[in-house]
Amino acid sequence: MKNPIIIAIDAMGGDNSPNKVIEGISLHAKKSDKIFYKIFGNENLITPFIKKYNISYDRFEIIHTDKVVLGEDSALAAAKRGKDTSLWLAVESLKHSTADAIVSAGNTGALFLISKLNLKMIENIDKPALSALWPSMKGMNVVLDLGANIECNSKNLVDFSIMGSALLKALFDNANATVALLNIGSEELKGNAMIKDTYQILTDNKYSLFDFKGYIEGNHIMDGDVNVIVADGFTGNVALKTAEGTSNFIISELKKALSSSLIGKFSSLINIHNLKKFKNKLDPRLYNGAILLGLDKPVIKSHGSTDAIGFANSLTVCEKTIRGNLINQIKENIK
Amino acid sequence: MKNPIIIAIDAMGGDNSPNKVIEGISLHAKKSDKIFYKIFGNENLITPFIKKYNISYDRFEIIHTDKVVLGEDSALAAAKRGKDTSLWLAVESLKHSTADAIVSAGNTGALFLISKLNLKMIENIDKPALSALWPSMKGMNVVLDLGANIECNSKNLVDFSIMGSALLKALFDNANATVALLNIGSEELKGNAMIKDTYQILTDNKYSLFDFKGYIEGNHIMDGDVNVIVADGFTGNVALKTAEGTSNFIISELKKALSSSLIGKFSSLINIHNLKKFKNKLDPRLYNGAILLGLDKPVIKSHGSTDAIGFANSLTVCEKTIRGNLINQIKENIK
Repeated sequence: MKNPIIIAIDAMGGDNSPNKVIEGISLHAKKSDKIFYKIFGNENLITPFIKKYNISYDRFEIIHTDKVVLGEDSALAAAKRGKDTSLWLAVESLKHSTADAIVSAGNTGALFLISKLNLKMIENIDKPALSALWPSMKGMNVVLDLGANIECNSKNLVDFSIMGSALLKALFDNANATVALLNIGSEELKGNAMIKDTYQILTDNKYSLFDFKGYIEGNHIMDGDVNVIVADGFTGNVALKTAEGTSNFIISELKKALSSSLIGKFSSLINIHNLKKFKNKLDPRLYNGAILLGLDKPVIKSHGSTDAIGFANSLTVCEKTIRGNLINQIKENIK
Repeated sequence: MKNPIIIAIDAMGGDNSPNKVIEGISLHAKKSDKIFYKIFGNENLITPFIKKYNISYDRFEIIHTDKVVLGEDSALAAAKRGKDTSLWLAVESLKHSTADAIVSAGNTGALFLISKLNLKMIENIDKPALSALWPSMKGMNVVLDLGANIECNSKNLVDFSIMGSALLKALFDNANATVALLNIGSEELKGNAMIKDTYQILTDNKYSLFDFKGYIEGNHIMDGDVNVIVADGFTGNVALKTAEGTSNFIISELKKALSSSLIGKFSSLINIHNLKKFKNKLDPRLYNGAILLGLDKPVIKSHGSTDAIGFANSLTVCEKTIRGNLINQIKENIK
């Protein structure tokens, strides 16, 4: 392979790892050429799955370590565990430029702290932000910050607008980015002073990466009229988690309704094709992969409870951030 | 009628009023004795519906005015419209103790401002809070503040805990109230200083109205493990609106899935009973009626777009706040 994209993978984090991680790699390798996988973790545990999923030996290497970060470690405890855990070594390979992006399905706090310790912030960005994809009526939104920063100032939110737009463009073939600030009223009058300041800055300046569309309320996030939603980390996290809870609630009530009688059982069989289409549209594996933005390399967090398909999608996110030139786009647009 | 509960009703606000308001009264009157309806608005527009829905003449009086607050008025413009709008007169009847509670399906900001101008705050409460019902796996939650106060201190959130618990008890037969603070992590470490302070106060003190259960994240609001969820008005509003948007998104995707093919159409006919049960559980009319807490009389906001059934439910909320002795419960527990 000439000049492959190299993805560093912590194989040991998350539920059912390294099984799902290696299966995810095999799924991704089948549809993506020119990717090389640097797999960090316990070789004895990894190798059987390499064989099981039949991954070609020219597509990967295993960097062996038997030390791992635990899911229950605090971020600090994980960092103190030392520089030879699979997570630390994977992040360090980005620092040494022997890999282009990192993904882990393990401990979120640990991934972010170890990344912040090893990687540089992009110049002129004060705070990294956690972003993710969120489905809408018309496609996918990028939403950030989802919890990296509890308190933000207007400079941070402007940075988030630029970084979120660069991410959207990298992931979706240079699509037009339209930014809105999450607020509690669509009129200019509502919101706190920080949000109003941000509104003013985004209105008064021109940004080549995106169009600023003003405020958005929570009930319109999924309309698809804008595709980059910006908030401080507290608000963004509450919104994301509430959407997740609401979705779980409705799906669980729906399942109860469909199986609560014989006729329900019968007709849910008939409906299986349509319900599958419905489920697919909402499948969280489709948009698996939260991205920590603001560091000078792409850091991707796969959901800990996802399966091989979800993990493969987070590898696609890694790939697209590189092919879409995410980091340079951010650097050029942050002044 | 001896000692009826008297509900003041602004008949002119909201979509399709006064039609839906009067029909809502007729529905409520059939199942609730000892309620007297003081209907404020244009007699010429109201009377035909009184006849149509056949409301007994000993159950209501009409207080005529042809001045109304408009839906598009700012709160201030609505207050300036003067003291003879149907909304102002309805609120004023509480001030003069000729009615026990007020409900309006009209302009939210106007209802709250005119209420604050006319009614007293309960002693020792600094800020009123907007609360509403929110369905859970196990029943209904009370959630507050939903947008009355963008910025809050810990004293406010403690007050909200007491007021929300009193409301839950009034609405649900003195049920046990369990309070949680909406936050972005369940560990004590997360959240801003204000939330942590509130946590400490609620932990260090005993409250006879409720048990304090700590923090809750957005994805667990609907689990039903606690039933009073407390947040500042910005966070609460974002959570509520995001849940609404998510719910609309899923239901709309579900409808598409069920009608996108002939087989879908056929089987959705079979499913109609179960889907109805499902829809009923999520029917927003069931929990229609947001309550402004902190004033010394119950002020209830019906959703502007609800129908007669929803409006009747907001009348039930009025009735229960009086029968459940809401205001005295709050007074006795706020020290």
